[in-house]
Amino acid sequence: MDNLQFLYVSGGCALLALGFAFFMFTQIMKKDPGDAKMQAISRQVQIGANAFLAAEYKWLAVFVVIVAATIAFAGEAADLGPQAAIAFIAGASASALAGYFGMFTSTRAAVRTTQAARTSLGDALKVAFGSGSVMGMTVVGLSLLGLVVFTYLYTDNLTNITEKSLNSVLGFSFGASSIALFARVGGGIYTKAADVGGDLVGKIEAGIPEDDPRNPAVIADNVGDNVGDVAGMGADLFESYAGSIVAAMTLGFFAYHGQEHMTSMVVMPLAVSALGILASIIGSFFVGAKNESQLQSALFRGMVVASIVAAAATWWLCNGALPLPAGVNGTHLFIAITSGLVAGVIIGKLTDYYTSSSFKPVKNIAFQSQTGPATNIIHGLATGMESVALPVVFICAAIWAAYEFGGIYGVAMSAVGMLSTLGITLAVDAYGPVADNAGGLAEMAHLPKEVRERTDALDSCGNTTAAIGKGFAIGSAALTALALFSAFCTKAGELSLRPEASEALKKLVVDGSMVLNINTPTVTIGLLIGGFLPFLFSAMTMRAVGNAANKMVEEVRRQFREIKGLMEGKAEPDTQRCVAIATDGAIKQMIVPGVMAVTVPLIVGKFMGIEALGGMLAGSLVSSVMLAIFMSNAGGAWDNAKKYIEAGAFGGKGGPVHKAAVVGDTVGDPFKDTSGPSLNILIKLMTVVGVIFLPWFV
Amino acid sequence: MDNLQFLYVSGGCALLALGFAFFMFTQIMKKDPGDAKMQAISRQVQIGANAFLAAEYKWLAVFVVIVAATIAFAGEAADLGPQAAIAFIAGASASALAGYFGMFTSTRAAVRTTQAARTSLGDALKVAFGSGSVMGMTVVGLSLLGLVVFTYLYTDNLTNITEKSLNSVLGFSFGASSIALFARVGGGIYTKAADVGGDLVGKIEAGIPEDDPRNPAVIADNVGDNVGDVAGMGADLFESYAGSIVAAMTLGFFAYHGQEHMTSMVVMPLAVSALGILASIIGSFFVGAKNESQLQSALFRGMVVASIVAAAATWWLCNGALPLPAGVNGTHLFIAITSGLVAGVIIGKLTDYYTSSSFKPVKNIAFQSQTGPATNIIHGLATGMESVALPVVFICAAIWAAYEFGGIYGVAMSAVGMLSTLGITLAVDAYGPVADNAGGLAEMAHLPKEVRERTDALDSCGNTTAAIGKGFAIGSAALTALALFSAFCTKAGELSLRPEASEALKKLVVDGSMVLNINTPTVTIGLLIGGFLPFLFSAMTMRAVGNAANKMVEEVRRQFREIKGLMEGKAEPDTQRCVAIATDGAIKQMIVPGVMAVTVPLIVGKFMGIEALGGMLAGSLVSSVMLAIFMSNAGGAWDNAKKYIEAGAFGGKGGPVHKAAVVGDTVGDPFKDTSGPSLNILIKLMTVVGVIFLPWFV
Repeated sequence: MDNLQFLYVSGGCALLALGFAFFMFTQIMKKDPGDAKMQAISRQVQIGANAFLAAEYKWLAVFVVIVAATIAFAGEAADLGPQAAIAFIAGASASALAGYFGMFTSTRAAVRTTQAARTSLGDALKVAFGSGSVMGMTVVGLSLLGLVVFTYLYTDNLTNITEKSLNSVLGFSFGASSIALFARVGGGIYTKAADVGGDLVGKIEAGIPEDDPRNPAVIADNVGDNVGDVAGMGADLFESYAGSIVAAMTLGFFAYHGQEHMTSMVVMPLAVSALGILASIIGSFFVGAKNESQLQSALFRGMVVASIVAAAATWWLCNGALPLPAGVNGTHLFIAITSGLVAGVIIGKLTDYYTSSSFKPVKNIAFQSQTGPATNIIHGLATGMESVALPVVFICAAIWAAYEFGGIYGVAMSAVGMLSTLGITLAVDAYGPVADNAGGLAEMAHLPKEVRERTDALDSCGNTTAAIGKGFAIGSAALTALALFSAFCTKAGELSLRPEASEALKKLVVDGSMVLNINTPTVTIGLLIGGFLPFLFSAMTMRAVGNAANKMVEEVRRQFREIKGLMEGKAEPDTQRCVAIATDGAIKQMIVPGVMAVTVPLIVGKFMGIEALGGMLAGSLVSSVMLAIFMSNAGGAWDNAKKYIEAGAFGGKGGPVHKAAVVGDTVGDPFKDTSGPSLNILIKLMTVVGVIFLPWFV
Repeated sequence: MDNLQFLYVSGGCALLALGFAFFMFTQIMKKDPGDAKMQAISRQVQIGANAFLAAEYKWLAVFVVIVAATIAFAGEAADLGPQAAIAFIAGASASALAGYFGMFTSTRAAVRTTQAARTSLGDALKVAFGSGSVMGMTVVGLSLLGLVVFTYLYTDNLTNITEKSLNSVLGFSFGASSIALFARVGGGIYTKAADVGGDLVGKIEAGIPEDDPRNPAVIADNVGDNVGDVAGMGADLFESYAGSIVAAMTLGFFAYHGQEHMTSMVVMPLAVSALGILASIIGSFFVGAKNESQLQSALFRGMVVASIVAAAATWWLCNGALPLPAGVNGTHLFIAITSGLVAGVIIGKLTDYYTSSSFKPVKNIAFQSQTGPATNIIHGLATGMESVALPVVFICAAIWAAYEFGGIYGVAMSAVGMLSTLGITLAVDAYGPVADNAGGLAEMAHLPKEVRERTDALDSCGNTTAAIGKGFAIGSAALTALALFSAFCTKAGELSLRPEASEALKKLVVDGSMVLNINTPTVTIGLLIGGFLPFLFSAMTMRAVGNAANKMVEEVRRQFREIKGLMEGKAEPDTQRCVAIATDGAIKQMIVPGVMAVTVPLIVGKFMGIEALGGMLAGSLVSSVMLAIFMSNAGGAWDNAKKYIEAGAFGGKGGPVHKAAVVGDTVGDPFKDTSGPSLNILIKLMTVVGVIFLPWFV
């Protein structure tokens, strides 16, 4: 096949993914949605989730319009203009649409999972995993489709690949990034404000169990799982997926510019991702379990099958299917691409080690909780900090292998490789919140105990897979940001060759790429500024959760106080008021950090220069990766230490050790679900902004 | 005066500092040590502190001998050899001696402060501040003396300044760094293990007040203040002081090599420091207060007077006193040097803002404690993270100004400027633990209430000054590490000119200095590795505190259980056993992180090359500065939020809000007194190792 045919195939695979997602959706909707009570509760969650997304997207629409106008009028000189603006709007819309559809499905799948759990675990798994697949396939389908279409349009069917055309395609990724940031931050604030606020009053003050229908915040909590863990996570990986592909396309163009078969290197990332979709679909047929002990292995089996198929397909692409430029060794390229895939799996496993109650770190946190909340916190923080080292070592190993065997292009392709099976990894990840919600529904609808036990089994397995998913998200964000960073430096090199390039810029470029010498004050200052941004950003998002949670606490307390008969179960709580408070809080609090992430690179780039900006992006990358791993893993470890105690260790649920562990879990909530994951997007978004607006800076 | 005369003057000032320290010491010892009971308690603290230093120094002696032997036999080719080894041993010994003498004084000054507080606040301040001055002046005196002597000896009275001679002088700084690391880490673990362990059982479980003589850990806690906050802090700043001076000397040599009056630039850092000693002595005469409201301003007055005198002296040095190379503008150099001084004061003030109960951040943490320990922790962490931004901005501003007006040499000199008044800033800082101990003694000896009130006033003021001191320590560590980093790159440039230099090395060097291009995988991998090291190091030290504190908890619980009549005040606790446990725990736990700090740069430099090492040092610098500020300020803010509540806010001492705040305070203890400050040393030490062993790597 030639390159154009591969582009068509890629578009076909994207459509296939969307078709698969729609098919799964119809299958889910055919399932029994349970009795009237269950449906009523489910509808409350659906209404709440819709209300949040509507409020969020309204605000986002304003943001998208402003940025799109900026891009459109930034002018041709800056390699921007209407084409990039259109791609930007499309990227933002596609990401928003994927989030909406994924969430639409998950809020409907939860109640059907509960109903299925009345019969068997296997059926419940099918529904929950199906819902995750809808999210996963929609994300990869829309993302790849958008990239294929804009590549086709802007390069005149691959006949005219230029910097400007690729910069316009990059607009798609930038659009996705913008949505991702607000979806992650807003969703993360929402979910944790509801969770923390509800728990603080319900579990700790009033002493009622989790998901108790008397707690007015319980619906908001369930909504939060959907807007944060489904829509937010989906948007995060949507942008990693799009970002890594377009970064690799750009670097493929720069690295092999003027050589025969350069087009193959531009099409390669699209093709690898397209075959990854097929691999994911094949893998998802291998997911199925009859009892609890099979659950974990069922999900892993699906991922492993998909990875093997994807690796085989990549081998085929590198060794014959696509004509490579002279001097490019197919096997070497294959190694570079799969290094990301391998690193992703290892990082996932490491995340599992640090956050699962089967291993020493979490058990130790539980043990330390015996001396109270302070030692629980100290050891949780220490575990999180310690857990940074090994994943980073493996990221470094992947970078090394990818560079050794594929150069800078190889590094970008390793990110593409890591994300090629996103269709199934995201499915495995997004099934967790569905199971979680299903359990909440069982509790609220007073279903028999075995139903809750089955959903708990699904949920507990979901926690592990979520940890792996988070590891993937961080690892891929690091590699994607690095690939975009390389694109930033390479693009600066290309700009220096233009006739209008300044002497200052020309001086910075050696061998076609910008040199960012740490041993100059400008770069050092940039590094330090970049270093503190993730801290500032995390502080903002954590505080946002705290503020929103406080409002929730007050409201729940007020309802407990003022609604007569609520605690006795004779009156209904006003759940939609809690939903409104969470929505309002999340939207208000996401604006400042979100706008900061977009404007700071613009300010630094314009007023301090591209050397400072390059330093800043590198500093942010370093700082973000460390903080993100630290926060995600500390949060996961606290969560599971609490669950470990709830399962009977150190006096079990309700004892003083459990109380201490609940403190850690509460602190960990914004860590792992708001601030930590938001950092993934911060680095990618800032780097994309840097790349897109680079011509404007110089 | 010529350069050699300035060298003599510098030596004279160093001796003057030592004489002043000894004079203050004799004045303190003349004071009334109180009644028999007070003396008995004080003796227990002295014995405990001695026992710890003896155990620590024994272990350190082994370490010093091994490293000295390595340096001695590393051979002349690596610019090392016996001269560097001797300087290394001297640096280590001088730092150890300063720590010992400072602690010897502080443990004796505390009881005399208590006794003086029976009469008046002013007298008590005099004793406590005098003890701080002994520490401050001993540190600057021994440090400067050592540098002057080795400069004199190794450069043949300034007639033969070479790379090798300066590398040998650098050995003195390396020796100081090694001691500093272990003193900070060991002392930090000790003090917090005793504090946390004692508080967890005493305050939280048994409900007895702080410093209650029934608590068996109370002596160990008092010992800890001395070994951690006096000896540890002293060693930390000893090495910043020595490190910044020798880095500036090295850069002065490289930058003005071959020019007339190059020697002035080598002598300049010594001269600035020497005149800073005079300024500090003058400033310390302005410290004096009659009542509580004057306390804070009394200490500030001393520091401000010293800063002004130092700035004036620097002006004199730059504008005529020292002959400068052609093209060096004296006024510009003056601006570069004082930029550090100004940044130090601003960073101190910012630290005060984020950690003092007079301002919004701490009040907000106290407010958030109303919803329990979890929100206290979340907001404390958020405050710490937020507090990173502005100090880093001012560090960047200092770097910018220093570079703009003095080049790379200017950056190193700004660190020297920041530390020039260390004699008094350290005095202001080291007086805090003396006041703290004096209060403990008043409590244990059952002295009248007004005595405790007076010592509390001193202590509370000491907390603010300690915060400022920590800000100084971090700011100076950042600039010192940066100066050493520049020395690292410049030295690599010089090495590339030697006949035996490899082609690979020559390629890395542009304009006489190594280029560390972030946009190469090796440097990126180095950056990422450097990024996680501070996290790993902090995890280790926090866990060390946790482990040692746990042993303490068990012991205190055992004593409460087994010693009949202890809680009723009829029996004595076995305090020395707690001292032994803290000592043992601290020594054991400091070894792994300490050895890691020295060996990792060696391993990376030797096996991954100097580009990776350079990236690693830069990554560590970025990551360490952020984490150190975050941890120190979060810890300080939690501490003062608790104190704010104890002073009557939100229900005051003993209420549920206070209990929540105590959790934050306990988490903050290892943050602010162990892990955070240890990072200052980690970056300096790793960079010194990099510079010293650079010839061995290439």
